[in-house]
Amino acid sequence: MELTEKQLSTKTIYDGSIIKVRVDEVLLPNGETGKREVVEHSGAVCVVPITNDNMVYMVRQFRYAFGETILEIPAGKLNDENENWADAAMRELEEETGMKTDELIYIGDFYPAVATYTEVIHMYVAKGLHKGEQNLDDDEFLEVEKFPLSTLVDMIMSGEIKDGKTIAAILKVNLMLQK
Amino acid sequence: MELTEKQLSTKTIYDGSIIKVRVDEVLLPNGETGKREVVEHSGAVCVVPITNDNMVYMVRQFRYAFGETILEIPAGKLNDENENWADAAMRELEEETGMKTDELIYIGDFYPAVATYTEVIHMYVAKGLHKGEQNLDDDEFLEVEKFPLSTLVDMIMSGEIKDGKTIAAILKVNLMLQK
Repeated sequence: MELTEKQLSTKTIYDGSIIKVRVDEVLLPNGETGKREVVEHSGAVCVVPITNDNMVYMVRQFRYAFGETILEIPAGKLNDENENWADAAMRELEEETGMKTDELIYIGDFYPAVATYTEVIHMYVAKGLHKGEQNLDDDEFLEVEKFPLSTLVDMIMSGEIKDGKTIAAILKVNLMLQK
Repeated sequence: MELTEKQLSTKTIYDGSIIKVRVDEVLLPNGETGKREVVEHSGAVCVVPITNDNMVYMVRQFRYAFGETILEIPAGKLNDENENWADAAMRELEEETGMKTDELIYIGDFYPAVATYTEVIHMYVAKGLHKGEQNLDDDEFLEVEKFPLSTLVDMIMSGEIKDGKTIAAILKVNLMLQK
Protein backbone atom coordinates (compact mmCIF):
# COMPACT_ATOMS: atom_id res chain seq x y z
CA MET A 1 0.00 0.00 0.00
CA GLU A 2 1.30 3.48 -0.87
CA LEU A 3 1.43 5.45 2.40
CA THR A 4 3.69 8.41 1.53
CA GLU A 5 2.51 12.02 1.86
CA LYS A 6 4.16 14.72 -0.29
CA GLN A 7 4.73 18.38 0.62
CA LEU A 8 2.79 20.83 -1.58
CA SER A 9 3.53 24.03 0.35
CA THR A 10 4.88 25.12 3.72
CA LYS A 11 4.30 28.11 5.95
CA THR A 12 6.50 29.01 8.94
CA ILE A 13 4.33 30.03 11.90
CA TYR A 14 6.99 30.54 14.57
CA ASP A 15 10.79 30.43 14.68
CA GLY A 16 11.74 30.28 18.37
CA SER A 17 14.73 29.35 20.48
CA ILE A 18 13.91 25.64 21.03
CA ILE A 19 11.13 24.99 18.53
CA LYS A 20 10.08 26.07 15.06
CA VAL A 21 6.45 25.58 13.99
CA ARG A 22 5.24 25.18 10.41
CA VAL A 23 2.02 24.17 8.71
CA ASP A 24 2.32 22.26 5.43
CA GLU A 25 -0.22 21.39 2.79
CA VAL A 26 0.36 17.78 1.70
CA LEU A 27 -0.76 15.39 -1.01
CA LEU A 28 -2.29 12.33 0.67
CA PRO A 29 -1.97 8.76 -0.72
CA ASN A 30 -5.56 8.91 -2.02
CA GLY A 31 -4.87 12.03 -4.13
CA GLU A 32 -6.66 14.41 -1.74
CA THR A 33 -4.88 17.27 0.01
CA GLY A 34 -4.44 17.59 3.78
CA LYS A 35 -2.83 19.85 6.37
CA ARG A 36 0.06 18.79 8.64
CA GLU A 37 1.21 20.78 11.67
CA VAL A 38 4.92 20.18 12.33
CA VAL A 39 6.94 21.25 15.38
CA GLU A 40 10.64 21.20 14.49
CA HIS A 41 13.22 20.48 17.18
CA SER A 42 16.96 20.03 16.56
CA GLY A 43 17.28 16.87 18.68
CA ALA A 44 18.58 15.91 22.09
CA VAL A 45 20.45 13.30 24.11
CA CYS A 46 19.65 11.44 27.33
CA VAL A 47 21.87 9.28 29.54
CA VAL A 48 21.33 6.52 32.11
CA PRO A 49 24.33 7.05 34.45
CA ILE A 50 24.74 3.75 36.32
CA THR A 51 27.32 2.73 38.95
CA ASN A 52 28.91 -0.71 39.29
CA ASP A 53 26.37 -1.56 42.01
CA ASN A 54 23.41 -0.54 39.79
CA MET A 55 22.66 2.85 41.32
CA VAL A 56 21.32 5.42 38.81
CA TYR A 57 21.82 9.21 39.01
CA MET A 58 18.50 10.97 38.35
CA VAL A 59 17.53 14.65 38.17
CA ARG A 60 14.36 16.24 39.49
CA GLN A 61 13.35 19.52 37.87
CA PHE A 62 10.33 21.75 37.44
CA ARG A 63 8.84 21.30 33.99
CA TYR A 64 6.92 24.45 33.20
CA ALA A 65 4.74 22.84 30.48
CA PHE A 66 3.35 20.46 33.15
CA GLY A 67 3.53 22.78 36.18
CA GLU A 68 5.15 19.99 38.20
CA THR A 69 8.58 18.68 39.21
CA ILE A 70 9.45 15.57 37.24
CA LEU A 71 12.01 12.83 37.92
CA GLU A 72 14.09 12.14 34.81
CA ILE A 73 17.40 10.80 33.59
CA PRO A 74 19.89 13.56 32.65
CA ALA A 75 19.23 15.00 29.17
CA GLY A 76 19.77 18.02 26.99
CA LYS A 77 20.27 19.54 23.57
CA LEU A 78 23.43 20.01 21.50
CA ASN A 79 25.47 23.12 22.42
CA ASP A 80 25.79 23.95 18.74
CA GLU A 81 25.46 22.11 15.44
CA ASN A 82 29.15 21.10 15.45
CA GLU A 83 28.86 19.10 18.69
CA ASN A 84 28.32 15.37 18.20
CA TRP A 85 25.70 13.39 20.11
CA ALA A 86 28.12 11.40 22.30
CA ASP A 87 30.03 14.56 23.32
CA ALA A 88 26.71 16.23 24.17
CA ALA A 89 25.70 13.23 26.29
CA MET A 90 28.98 13.33 28.26
CA ARG A 91 28.75 17.11 28.67
CA GLU A 92 25.11 17.07 29.83
CA LEU A 93 25.86 14.23 32.25
CA GLU A 94 28.64 16.23 33.92
CA GLU A 95 26.82 19.59 33.82
CA GLU A 96 23.65 18.21 35.40
CA THR A 97 24.94 15.58 37.85
CA GLY A 98 28.61 16.49 38.36
CA MET A 99 29.67 12.97 37.26
CA LYS A 100 31.95 12.03 34.35
CA THR A 101 31.97 8.76 32.43
CA ASP A 102 34.71 6.48 31.05
CA GLU A 103 32.28 4.30 29.13
CA LEU A 104 29.40 5.75 27.12
CA ILE A 105 27.30 3.23 25.17
CA TYR A 106 24.67 4.21 22.58
CA ILE A 107 21.41 2.31 23.18
CA GLY A 108 19.16 3.60 20.37
CA ASP A 109 16.97 6.52 19.29
CA PHE A 110 13.71 7.66 20.87
CA TYR A 111 11.06 9.54 18.86
CA PRO A 112 8.98 11.37 21.51
CA ALA A 113 5.88 12.31 19.49
CA VAL A 114 5.88 11.05 15.90
CA ALA A 115 2.60 12.67 14.83
CA THR A 116 3.78 16.29 15.02
CA TYR A 117 7.22 16.63 16.60
CA THR A 118 10.52 16.11 14.72
CA GLU A 119 12.60 15.67 17.88
CA VAL A 120 14.88 12.62 18.11
CA ILE A 121 16.47 11.81 21.47
CA HIS A 122 19.69 9.78 21.25
CA MET A 123 19.84 7.43 24.25
CA TYR A 124 23.01 6.36 26.08
CA VAL A 125 24.07 4.43 29.14
CA ALA A 126 27.12 5.76 31.05
CA LYS A 127 29.32 3.43 33.13
CA GLY A 128 32.71 3.92 34.82
CA LEU A 129 31.40 7.02 36.61
CA HIS A 130 33.75 9.33 38.53
CA LYS A 131 33.54 12.81 40.00
CA GLY A 132 33.54 15.85 37.68
CA GLU A 133 31.98 19.28 38.18
CA GLN A 134 28.28 20.27 38.09
CA ASN A 135 27.62 23.37 35.94
CA LEU A 136 23.96 24.23 35.29
CA ASP A 137 22.59 26.59 32.62
CA ASP A 138 21.49 30.04 33.80
CA ASP A 139 17.81 29.09 33.58
CA GLU A 140 18.24 25.49 34.83
CA PHE A 141 17.38 24.46 38.41
CA LEU A 142 17.45 20.82 39.45
CA GLU A 143 18.17 18.33 42.23
CA VAL A 144 20.29 15.20 41.76
CA GLU A 145 19.10 11.96 43.43
CA LYS A 146 20.49 8.41 43.31
CA PHE A 147 18.17 5.36 43.06
CA PRO A 148 18.72 1.61 42.74
CA LEU A 149 17.85 0.55 39.17
CA SER A 150 15.31 -1.94 40.57
CA THR A 151 13.51 0.88 42.45
CA LEU A 152 13.26 2.92 39.23
CA VAL A 153 11.82 -0.11 37.40
CA ASP A 154 9.23 -0.48 40.19
CA MET A 155 8.40 3.25 39.94
CA ILE A 156 7.91 2.85 36.18
CA MET A 157 5.68 -0.21 36.58
CA SER A 158 3.54 1.54 39.24
CA GLY A 159 3.09 4.56 36.94
CA GLU A 160 4.96 6.96 39.25
CA ILE A 161 7.63 7.71 36.61
CA LYS A 162 5.91 9.21 33.56
CA ASP A 163 8.68 10.87 31.57
CA GLY A 164 8.82 9.02 28.24
CA LYS A 165 12.58 8.94 27.57
CA THR A 166 13.15 7.86 31.20
CA ILE A 167 10.69 4.93 30.91
CA ALA A 168 12.21 3.81 27.59
CA ALA A 169 15.90 4.13 28.51
CA ILE A 170 15.61 2.66 32.03
CA LEU A 171 13.59 -0.37 30.81
CA LYS A 172 16.09 -0.92 27.96
CA VAL A 173 19.06 -0.81 30.36
CA ASN A 174 17.23 -3.11 32.80
CA LEU A 175 16.67 -5.66 30.03
CA MET A 176 20.30 -5.33 28.79
CA LEU A 177 21.55 -6.20 32.29
CA GLN A 178 19.26 -9.26 32.47
CA LYS A 179 20.80 -10.76 29.30
CA MET B 1 15.46 23.63 46.94
CA GLU B 2 12.75 25.84 45.42
CA LEU B 3 12.37 24.78 41.78
CA THR B 4 9.00 26.28 40.77
CA GLU B 5 8.66 28.74 37.88
CA LYS B 6 5.73 31.19 37.87
CA GLN B 7 3.89 32.58 34.84
CA LEU B 8 4.25 36.37 34.41
CA SER B 9 2.63 36.72 30.99
CA THR B 10 1.54 34.54 28.09
CA LYS B 11 1.22 35.08 24.35
CA THR B 12 -0.62 32.73 21.98
CA ILE B 13 1.42 32.21 18.81
CA TYR B 14 -0.72 29.64 17.00
CA ASP B 15 -4.07 27.96 17.62
CA GLY B 16 -4.24 24.98 15.26
CA SER B 17 -6.19 21.76 14.88
CA ILE B 18 -3.88 19.46 16.87
CA ILE B 19 -1.52 21.88 18.63
CA LYS B 20 -1.60 25.32 20.20
CA VAL B 21 1.66 27.21 20.69
CA ARG B 22 2.33 29.88 23.31
CA VAL B 23 5.33 31.73 24.67
CA ASP B 24 5.29 32.65 28.36
CA GLU B 25 7.47 34.94 30.39
CA VAL B 26 8.22 33.24 33.73
CA LEU B 27 9.74 34.07 37.08
CA LEU B 28 12.64 31.67 37.70
CA PRO B 29 13.56 30.28 41.16
CA ASN B 30 16.51 32.72 41.38
CA GLY B 31 14.28 35.78 40.90
CA GLU B 32 15.32 36.35 37.26
CA THR B 33 12.86 36.17 34.36
CA GLY B 34 12.97 33.64 31.54
CA LYS B 35 11.05 32.62 28.42
CA ARG B 36 9.26 29.26 28.02
CA GLU B 37 7.92 27.94 24.71
CA VAL B 38 4.94 25.64 25.28
CA VAL B 39 3.21 23.41 22.73
CA GLU B 40 -0.25 22.49 24.02
CA HIS B 41 -1.83 19.18 23.02
CA SER B 42 -5.11 17.81 24.40
CA GLY B 43 -3.75 14.30 25.09
CA ALA B 44 -3.97 10.87 23.53
CA VAL B 45 -4.24 7.14 24.17
CA CYS B 46 -2.21 4.14 23.00
CA VAL B 47 -2.95 0.42 23.26
CA VAL B 48 -0.92 -2.80 23.20
CA PRO B 49 -3.45 -5.28 21.68
CA ILE B 50 -2.16 -8.73 22.66
CA THR B 51 -3.60 -12.18 21.91
CA ASN B 52 -3.59 -15.19 24.26
CA ASP B 53 -0.50 -16.52 22.48
CA ASN B 54 1.37 -13.19 22.88
CA MET B 55 0.94 -11.84 19.35
CA VAL B 56 0.66 -8.02 19.17
CA TYR B 57 -1.28 -6.03 16.54
CA MET B 58 0.88 -3.17 15.26
CA VAL B 59 0.24 -0.39 12.71
CA ARG B 60 2.68 0.96 10.15
CA GLN B 61 1.98 4.47 8.92
CA PHE B 62 3.73 7.34 7.18
CA ARG B 63 4.66 10.02 9.70
CA TYR B 64 4.98 13.27 7.81
CA ALA B 65 7.11 15.00 10.47
CA PHE B 66 9.79 12.30 9.94
CA GLY B 67 9.21 11.59 6.25
CA GLU B 68 9.22 7.84 6.97
CA THR B 69 6.84 4.98 7.70
CA ILE B 70 6.98 4.07 11.38
CA LEU B 71 5.89 0.89 13.19
CA GLU B 72 3.77 1.73 16.24
CA ILE B 73 1.13 0.41 18.58
CA PRO B 74 -2.38 1.74 17.80
CA ALA B 75 -2.95 5.25 19.18
CA GLY B 76 -5.04 8.37 18.78
CA LYS B 77 -6.67 11.42 20.30
CA LEU B 78 -10.06 11.84 21.98
CA ASN B 79 -12.99 12.29 19.56
CA ASP B 80 -14.24 15.17 21.68
CA GLU B 81 -13.75 16.42 25.22
CA ASN B 82 -16.65 14.31 26.54
CA GLU B 83 -15.06 11.00 25.53
CA ASN B 84 -13.15 9.25 28.32
CA TRP B 85 -9.66 7.79 27.86
CA ALA B 86 -10.66 4.12 28.05
CA ASP B 87 -13.48 4.59 25.50
CA ALA B 88 -11.03 6.37 23.20
CA ALA B 89 -8.55 3.49 23.53
CA MET B 90 -11.21 0.90 22.64
CA ARG B 91 -12.46 3.02 19.72
CA GLU B 92 -8.97 3.68 18.30
CA LEU B 93 -8.08 0.00 18.63
CA GLU B 94 -11.10 -1.04 16.57
CA GLU B 95 -10.84 1.83 14.05
CA GLU B 96 -7.16 1.19 13.31
CA THR B 97 -6.84 -2.61 13.57
CA GLY B 98 -10.42 -3.89 13.21
CA MET B 99 -10.14 -5.70 16.57
CA LYS B 100 -12.32 -5.24 19.67
CA THR B 101 -11.34 -5.95 23.26
CA ASP B 102 -13.10 -7.51 26.25
CA GLU B 103 -10.37 -6.56 28.70
CA LEU B 104 -8.73 -3.15 28.66
CA ILE B 105 -6.15 -2.51 31.41
CA TYR B 106 -4.62 0.90 32.15
CA ILE B 107 -0.82 0.65 32.46
CA GLY B 108 0.20 4.26 33.21
CA ASP B 109 0.81 7.66 31.63
CA PHE B 110 3.54 8.60 29.16
CA TYR B 111 4.84 12.19 28.87
CA PRO B 112 6.41 12.37 25.38
CA ALA B 113 8.47 15.56 25.66
CA VAL B 114 8.37 17.22 29.08
CA ALA B 115 10.48 20.28 28.19
CA THR B 116 7.99 21.89 25.81
CA TYR B 117 5.03 19.62 25.04
CA THR B 118 1.95 19.25 27.29
CA GLU B 119 0.79 16.01 25.66
CA VAL B 120 0.01 13.06 27.97
CA ILE B 121 -0.51 9.64 26.39
CA HIS B 122 -2.62 7.24 28.48
CA MET B 123 -1.29 3.70 27.95
CA TYR B 124 -3.41 0.53 27.91
CA VAL B 125 -3.05 -3.17 27.21
CA ALA B 126 -5.99 -4.89 25.47
CA LYS B 127 -6.68 -8.62 25.94
CA GLY B 128 -9.64 -10.83 24.98
CA LEU B 129 -9.42 -9.62 21.37
CA HIS B 130 -12.11 -10.45 18.82
CA LYS B 131 -13.10 -9.24 15.40
CA GLY B 132 -14.70 -5.79 14.96
CA GLU B 133 -14.60 -3.39 12.03
CA GLN B 134 -11.70 -1.24 10.79
CA ASN B 135 -12.71 2.39 10.12
CA LEU B 136 -9.89 4.84 9.36
CA ASP B 137 -10.05 8.65 9.45
CA ASP B 138 -10.27 10.42 6.07
CA ASP B 139 -6.59 11.45 6.24
CA GLU B 140 -5.33 8.23 7.86
CA PHE B 141 -3.54 5.51 5.86
CA LEU B 142 -1.95 2.54 7.60
CA GLU B 143 -1.12 -1.16 7.43
CA VAL B 144 -1.85 -3.63 10.25
CA GLU B 145 0.80 -6.27 11.06
CA LYS B 146 0.96 -8.92 13.78
CA PHE B 147 4.24 -9.66 15.63
CA PRO B 148 5.22 -11.98 18.51
CA LEU B 149 5.82 -9.84 21.63
CA SER B 150 9.35 -11.29 21.89
CA THR B 151 10.15 -10.12 18.33
CA LEU B 152 9.00 -6.58 19.20
CA VAL B 153 11.20 -6.62 22.32
CA ASP B 154 14.15 -7.69 20.13
CA MET B 155 13.34 -4.88 17.63
CA ILE B 156 13.31 -2.39 20.51
CA MET B 157 16.62 -3.64 21.92
CA SER B 158 18.29 -3.50 18.47
CA GLY B 159 17.07 0.09 17.99
CA GLU B 160 14.83 -0.76 15.02
CA ILE B 161 11.67 0.41 16.86
CA LYS B 162 12.10 4.09 17.75
CA ASP B 163 8.60 5.35 18.50
CA GLY B 164 8.66 6.41 22.15
CA LYS B 165 5.20 5.28 23.32
CA THR B 166 5.73 1.94 21.57
CA ILE B 167 9.08 1.33 23.33
CA ALA B 168 7.60 2.29 26.72
CA ALA B 169 4.31 0.38 26.48
CA ILE B 170 5.76 -2.80 24.92
CA LEU B 171 8.58 -3.03 27.50
CA LYS B 172 6.08 -2.43 30.33
CA VAL B 173 3.77 -5.19 29.05
CA ASN B 174 6.76 -7.52 28.55
CA LEU B 175 7.82 -6.96 32.17
CA MET B 176 4.22 -7.40 33.46
CA LEU B 177 4.02 -10.80 31.75
CA GLN B 178 7.35 -11.89 33.31
CA LYS B 179 6.04 -11.27 36.83
